[in-house]
Amino acid sequence: MSGEFERIAQIVEALGHRARGIGSDCAIVEPGEGRLVASTDTSVEGVHFRLDWIALREAGWRAAAGAFSDLAPAGAMPAALLAAVVVPASAADEDLVALMAGVGDAAEAAGAPVSGGDLSSGPAWSLTITVFGWAPRPVTRTGARPGDGLWVTGALGASRAALEAWRRGEQPVAEARAAFAHPVARLDAGRRLAAVGARAMIDLSDGLGGDAAHLARASEVGIDMELDAVPAAAACIEEARRLGISPQQFAAEGGEDYELLAALPGDFGESDAPAFMRDCGIPLTRIGAVRQGSGVHATLAGRPIALVGFDHFR
Amino acid sequence: MSGEFERIAQIVEALGHRARGIGSDCAIVEPGEGRLVASTDTSVEGVHFRLDWIALREAGWRAAAGAFSDLAPAGAMPAALLAAVVVPASAADEDLVALMAGVGDAAEAAGAPVSGGDLSSGPAWSLTITVFGWAPRPVTRTGARPGDGLWVTGALGASRAALEAWRRGEQPVAEARAAFAHPVARLDAGRRLAAVGARAMIDLSDGLGGDAAHLARASEVGIDMELDAVPAAAACIEEARRLGISPQQFAAEGGEDYELLAALPGDFGESDAPAFMRDCGIPLTRIGAVRQGSGVHATLAGRPIALVGFDHFR
Repeated sequence: MSGEFERIAQIVEALGHRARGIGSDCAIVEPGEGRLVASTDTSVEGVHFRLDWIALREAGWRAAAGAFSDLAPAGAMPAALLAAVVVPASAADEDLVALMAGVGDAAEAAGAPVSGGDLSSGPAWSLTITVFGWAPRPVTRTGARPGDGLWVTGALGASRAALEAWRRGEQPVAEARAAFAHPVARLDAGRRLAAVGARAMIDLSDGLGGDAAHLARASEVGIDMELDAVPAAAACIEEARRLGISPQQFAAEGGEDYELLAALPGDFGESDAPAFMRDCGIPLTRIGAVRQGSGVHATLAGRPIALVGFDHFR
Repeated sequence: MSGEFERIAQIVEALGHRARGIGSDCAIVEPGEGRLVASTDTSVEGVHFRLDWIALREAGWRAAAGAFSDLAPAGAMPAALLAAVVVPASAADEDLVALMAGVGDAAEAAGAPVSGGDLSSGPAWSLTITVFGWAPRPVTRTGARPGDGLWVTGALGASRAALEAWRRGEQPVAEARAAFAHPVARLDAGRRLAAVGARAMIDLSDGLGGDAAHLARASEVGIDMELDAVPAAAACIEEARRLGISPQQFAAEGGEDYELLAALPGDFGESDAPAFMRDCGIPLTRIGAVRQGSGVHATLAGRPIALVGFDHFR
């Protein structure tokens, strides 16, 4: 096992053009347009991922994509990433390089360089990714108004399907595994939704039920959702059947989908969704509406349904 | 033990006016003057600190002050702090609140709010602090030129004296304990030195020997240091005597002092140091000079001496 400075040199070599300015006391970034937005996110081995489920390079991608996903609802343009890695004593140099290569892949996909970080030793792999970017008019959770439509990007539930399969001791299907190991932060979609006037946005890391409740609380409104409209990933169907629930409920209760939930002005209609699909490559689906009041009221086949949330703190 | 959202509420309450915007997907910060500077730093229980040495509130202060210390050499004005905390399963709610209160204390001292973070569970306490700031003209490690004077702020070695005492199973003297548990990031000093034209600066987290070598390598120059001039903290004397070395060598080899090492133009002289002391409250001492060539040449009582570095990766 090499010393700190040799390890940093190995990482810089592996990152190539994806690294910028690593090895200084601090990263230096040119100012962009608008306000600075920033988020930090930790992934701990054995808590957020297991190395008998995914490879270290995938763990690096997943941690970085999850961090960028927190910038997406602001409609932000990413500017840089910092990676603080805790490395277990048993790790080889190539393990750390693999983890950071995954971080670099996700940073490149988001259009931001890896601009610095920190290396420590510790009892298990732990990776804290901090991302920052610029947003001309940062969208938050607080602006939803009665009459807004509630929309979701992509399809939900595939990440949960992978978790359910692994926990059962089986290999998830390819779509589910990819959703867990290789999530994509919806940065293009976030900027596009901000541009069409999104009043409030949130990424679906805690599941649709939990995140809709966060958005309703922050905006001081109520939300009505028709789960029949929720776009469930195909990988959900088999796992939902095992649990005896509908794929839509399974999808609505799954966490870490990294899709976006947006409150859009009422005049944004179904006829506007195809242009979004064409430009962003993922569907945009209306699943409900914002109303006066408080709380989330969800129905499935016309009947009220209570959604179970997803708490990361486990 | 409470859930994630209840814990965040407890932290927000404890931080009071020191918190700003916690609980959103991302922190939103108004742009400042100059370029964005950012740094991230992890403190792991059992690696960077031990809870039989310092309290959790002190661990929080120390981690945050250490992160701000990375902004000091840039001459930056801090703007925000993000805290990503890994909490062991055995922790009580008040433990996490104490840790974050220490983070808040250090943020307030640096003039920046706590603007967000992340909570996870994991095998041991681990705290990754990311700090942001603005620097009109960021000073880096790269600008030292032959003929510059080499200067250091404050007094060195007290943090190492605390470590040596604890490792021996004894309690450190108060000055040493305070240096380890309650370090102060030299932000005022960094801005002041940037304003008087510092060509290169670095904070002394790896020890004077190691950090002088970093600065020399980055600036492609050599450095001559007279260790006799190094301001050794009084707490060093007893610990240095036990090791059979001079207090100056002990101080020069100690890490985590969080003082600044600066290359200042040759026309900055001893007569300028008192004004610095008056404005910043700490001494500024000339300990060497920048020359053509490479490497660090240190002497003590006229004899060459090889300094042992301090590697965090342990």
